[in-house]
Amino acid sequence: MTSLLEQIQSPKDLQALNEKELTMLAQEIRQFLVTSVSKTGGHLASNLGVVELTLALHQVYDTFQDKIIWDVGHQTYVHKLLTGRLQTFHTLRQYGGISGFPKRHESLHDHFNTGHSATSISAALGMATARDLKGEKHQIAAVIGDGAMTGGMAFEALNHAGQSHLDLTVVLNDNKMSIARNVGGLSNYLTRIRTMPVYSRLKEDLEHLMDHFAIGKSFYRTAEKAKDSIKYFFVPGVLFEELGFTYIGPIDGHQIHDLKEAFRLARRIGGPKLVHVMTVKGKGYGPAEKFPAKFHGIGTFDPETGKTPLLTRTPSFSQIAGSTLESLAESDPRVVAITAAMPDGTGLTNFEHRFPHRFFDVGIAEQHAVTFAAGQAAAGLRPFFAVYSSFLQRGYDQLIHDVCLQNLPVTFLVDRAGLVGNDGETHHGVFDISCLSAIPNLTILSPADGTELSDMMRYSLELNSPVLIRYPRGEAHALTVKREPIQYGKGSVLQVDGNDYLIIALGTMVHRALEVLNQTAKDGLFGQIINPRFVKPLDHTLLLRHGQQVRQVYVLEENQQIGGLGRQVQALYQENQLTCPVHTLGLPDNFTPQGDMNHLYQHLELTVEKLVQRIHKDSSQTSRQPHKVVSMNLTEKRSYGKTAN
Amino acid sequence: MTSLLEQIQSPKDLQALNEKELTMLAQEIRQFLVTSVSKTGGHLASNLGVVELTLALHQVYDTFQDKIIWDVGHQTYVHKLLTGRLQTFHTLRQYGGISGFPKRHESLHDHFNTGHSATSISAALGMATARDLKGEKHQIAAVIGDGAMTGGMAFEALNHAGQSHLDLTVVLNDNKMSIARNVGGLSNYLTRIRTMPVYSRLKEDLEHLMDHFAIGKSFYRTAEKAKDSIKYFFVPGVLFEELGFTYIGPIDGHQIHDLKEAFRLARRIGGPKLVHVMTVKGKGYGPAEKFPAKFHGIGTFDPETGKTPLLTRTPSFSQIAGSTLESLAESDPRVVAITAAMPDGTGLTNFEHRFPHRFFDVGIAEQHAVTFAAGQAAAGLRPFFAVYSSFLQRGYDQLIHDVCLQNLPVTFLVDRAGLVGNDGETHHGVFDISCLSAIPNLTILSPADGTELSDMMRYSLELNSPVLIRYPRGEAHALTVKREPIQYGKGSVLQVDGNDYLIIALGTMVHRALEVLNQTAKDGLFGQIINPRFVKPLDHTLLLRHGQQVRQVYVLEENQQIGGLGRQVQALYQENQLTCPVHTLGLPDNFTPQGDMNHLYQHLELTVEKLVQRIHKDSSQTSRQPHKVVSMNLTEKRSYGKTAN
Repeated sequence: MTSLLEQIQSPKDLQALNEKELTMLAQEIRQFLVTSVSKTGGHLASNLGVVELTLALHQVYDTFQDKIIWDVGHQTYVHKLLTGRLQTFHTLRQYGGISGFPKRHESLHDHFNTGHSATSISAALGMATARDLKGEKHQIAAVIGDGAMTGGMAFEALNHAGQSHLDLTVVLNDNKMSIARNVGGLSNYLTRIRTMPVYSRLKEDLEHLMDHFAIGKSFYRTAEKAKDSIKYFFVPGVLFEELGFTYIGPIDGHQIHDLKEAFRLARRIGGPKLVHVMTVKGKGYGPAEKFPAKFHGIGTFDPETGKTPLLTRTPSFSQIAGSTLESLAESDPRVVAITAAMPDGTGLTNFEHRFPHRFFDVGIAEQHAVTFAAGQAAAGLRPFFAVYSSFLQRGYDQLIHDVCLQNLPVTFLVDRAGLVGNDGETHHGVFDISCLSAIPNLTILSPADGTELSDMMRYSLELNSPVLIRYPRGEAHALTVKREPIQYGKGSVLQVDGNDYLIIALGTMVHRALEVLNQTAKDGLFGQIINPRFVKPLDHTLLLRHGQQVRQVYVLEENQQIGGLGRQVQALYQENQLTCPVHTLGLPDNFTPQGDMNHLYQHLELTVEKLVQRIHKDSSQTSRQPHKVVSMNLTEKRSYGKTAN
Repeated sequence: MTSLLEQIQSPKDLQALNEKELTMLAQEIRQFLVTSVSKTGGHLASNLGVVELTLALHQVYDTFQDKIIWDVGHQTYVHKLLTGRLQTFHTLRQYGGISGFPKRHESLHDHFNTGHSATSISAALGMATARDLKGEKHQIAAVIGDGAMTGGMAFEALNHAGQSHLDLTVVLNDNKMSIARNVGGLSNYLTRIRTMPVYSRLKEDLEHLMDHFAIGKSFYRTAEKAKDSIKYFFVPGVLFEELGFTYIGPIDGHQIHDLKEAFRLARRIGGPKLVHVMTVKGKGYGPAEKFPAKFHGIGTFDPETGKTPLLTRTPSFSQIAGSTLESLAESDPRVVAITAAMPDGTGLTNFEHRFPHRFFDVGIAEQHAVTFAAGQAAAGLRPFFAVYSSFLQRGYDQLIHDVCLQNLPVTFLVDRAGLVGNDGETHHGVFDISCLSAIPNLTILSPADGTELSDMMRYSLELNSPVLIRYPRGEAHALTVKREPIQYGKGSVLQVDGNDYLIIALGTMVHRALEVLNQTAKDGLFGQIINPRFVKPLDHTLLLRHGQQVRQVYVLEENQQIGGLGRQVQALYQENQLTCPVHTLGLPDNFTPQGDMNHLYQHLELTVEKLVQRIHKDSSQTSRQPHKVVSMNLTEKRSYGKTAN
């Protein structure tokens, strides 16, 4: 049987389908998504929720001309299937495959790349100004979830759009969720709208009311938009109306007919308008409807049962961060935890259950989260803000301005620092060392394993100043080494086999370094490993002492090379006239693509095999005479303004 | 006559004053502010607007216990006068003097440092959680302007607060202005509230209405907060009520009695509440009421007339940026300008008048501004976003995620890069090189004078990728040098007197370098100057060629040393085994204080005199034999992924 889905080569092909066929197509798409994502992993629940919404959008809008911006963009699988990517869909999120997010280079129907939340209205508004200045005629729509709507930049854009009179449609995809249950006053407000009677009935009653309500009339005669104002209240959406939008809704997001009617209405009305669509995350697939957070982003699973394979039980860094925080909270009543809509991803779910009054989910609102933490710290608490590295970029100003300038003791648990794998460019956490090292008063740490993470978290409470601990996605494999306690600004020497080379291995890169050391030793090349522990302040003394002993230095880190640890080591060595070659093995000056970690390490030539080859090659090109040190000054020329107290 | 103001040693002393005395005190404060700020310069108009508001706050709240967070904080002069800083007020904004913003180290009545917009509600909310967890009892209020309310993080905080049930007061100081006239849907909404009849009268009518309006009642019986909902509409502030706040207002912000009543009401009501206060920016001083934007931040002026001294007419970098953009817009219809509430400060006022449809003031909303620009660029425009360096920190994620990842041709005109002087720590633009250099696809330029700024702006249109041009506050003194056209990644050799030393002088630092060169030449020390022009990509070839010729290298830049140009040069030299001393003369690893630029350069030992001394000293400590180069490899080992097209 040839499926309907296979007949859709382009969104134009949708026009031929009647409503019954569309319903069948929706069913096929759901089956396809469950089957396909069960093999590749990916964002499932959000896509199951927007099947009808996507079909209706593509029926009313012609994306050869009209532009649709998908906020966050992990909910574009249906859109991808309808725009020529059915055949390549099995490569989803793989190295070299199609992205899990919209990409302009992938399709002319992807009008703007997304990945982080709350950007769509801004982008759509920018495009609307371009359209009007160029005298073009087409529709522009931003599709944004109620979760993303808690991001401040969405409000900034609504505020700008509301005054602009630009023709623009915001589709609010309200499923009551971000990744976890959505939070905040806006979310409560949307819930109240959902319980209101439908628009059409209200409108009639309003007319009735207006005739009978003389006081109101006289009151508002002087006010702008007097009669409309009365309507606003009785119809849902007054909040959006007050900002200058025309509100349409709420619409059942699984009724294609209703959706199309709403979008057609939106097309007819000029200016900014908001179509409020209610959807169910995970719709049509039992396990995902029941556990939408689990099926938000998921690995492989059994499509029949929704069960995920039992994995080895090595705990992740996130889990260790969460359990450590629980034990810190037990003994220290000042300890509180903050997340920006990521309780599960950052390992805080259990903390929330155990300490509900000391746990704060602020919504997708990193700017607020950072300053909220600063306020807590200024008032005597010890907040830990657990956040992904690439999302902390949203709070960069607040980190400088509110935390570090006041030298407040906030601990940042920077999860997903380094490469994240399949989520790709938008989610790799590879800028934090570069952008954060310059900030005064900040201490930056990176643990090599879970025990070191716990030690560092505990240590952060001893400092009375901002601390940032960066650690990667995934399992925290334990190092079997003798452990020294964390000391301010002190790195740790992990292994010294000989003087042929030194690897300065940041965080979990020490595992790789240990393997490399063992491999080269078999061939008679003997190295050393330093785990710097502190990115800031760097252990200058240790790095200089070992740097002068060896013929080659390698700096392994998952951060951009520019501004990264390697460049900092180079600058330190130059200042102290150490000329031994320093090989900065961070990320080159471009965006690292998506893919599983093995492919990415191959792509970057950072596999153990490649590193061993490289060390052999470098070694053969350098004389094995003891390295000539031109001049050596082991006193640290640079001094940091602050010390631990 | 002993003035009332002089009798106020502490806010406690206010309690003894009756309303008539308070009115007299307000008058005294206004006179004092006009006289004092006319000598020191500072933020005048906003402070004149909050005299009664501040008096009322200090009468109702006890800031020995209660906490008041002043958003932005440039409106705290009255607060400072009432909390023991009358005698030191003449040192306002001076080097070593009191700050123009709240500082915790200055007074126990300053509860949180501010400077950038929209942070106060977040901080207050954080403090409220701390209060409740610690079982303390005190009031917490955030005072925020309607301008700051356009910043997304204010909305993030409102959203969080609205659901929190935490006892917290937001005082909305609505003067219809940010620095320029406020923009956006929210601003329009507040204007509508202002025209509404007062709350008290409405309340009675509402009761009347509720009795007569049967349909409504039955409708809303099922909805949450049914009866309240009806009220919301008829009283102003429904938008805030919908987010979960109790709205009180609008209140005449120059009637102390009314203000106190409102704050007392707010104290009595639990949960989050918003007091909407209407003030007039510049109130009581004719020139400031008439030209509030001019008197927002002002230098010295004649208190009688409000006239500012006629200064020499060297145009500022901002003015040159504005006029250049006008000429680019004349010849290229794709060119548009964006500001985040700073049309005047960024030199765009005339652009706005000439090209109103190609000018976009998005409000205090840097996150949105960056992605809005990305949307415009994706749709074929060539946006220029003019923004202060320290405020661009707010758009860091968007710059990476929306502009550079898509390699979109947005030009960032980064004004106030480097030290800004009297505004101090929060406003110095000294992190941009460190945090932005790591971003792929981005070209970073820094002009030495106005002509070079114009050339670079024009040049940015030739690239089809993101460009960032950083330039300082203040006058753009012209260089009298032969000019080479801007070439991708190429620096410019400005002067070569000899090989004793090389100064790599970024941007306007070349003026200083030229003076230094002339001075040392008198003593027989002959140097060279390179203007790198491109911070990214750096001209490796040029910097290496000249670095191997000289005995000392100095890198002059107004950016933190960590991650700055100097460290990048050191890393480059280390990689190429150049061991000549590189002196990184950027900013050390702490926050640079406030003060006029001369004091700051002395503080940092960056005056011409100090630099000359230093060069002499370094030179005497180094052998004058030709510098030994250990090994030299002029091919660039690093390659950048992209080239200009």
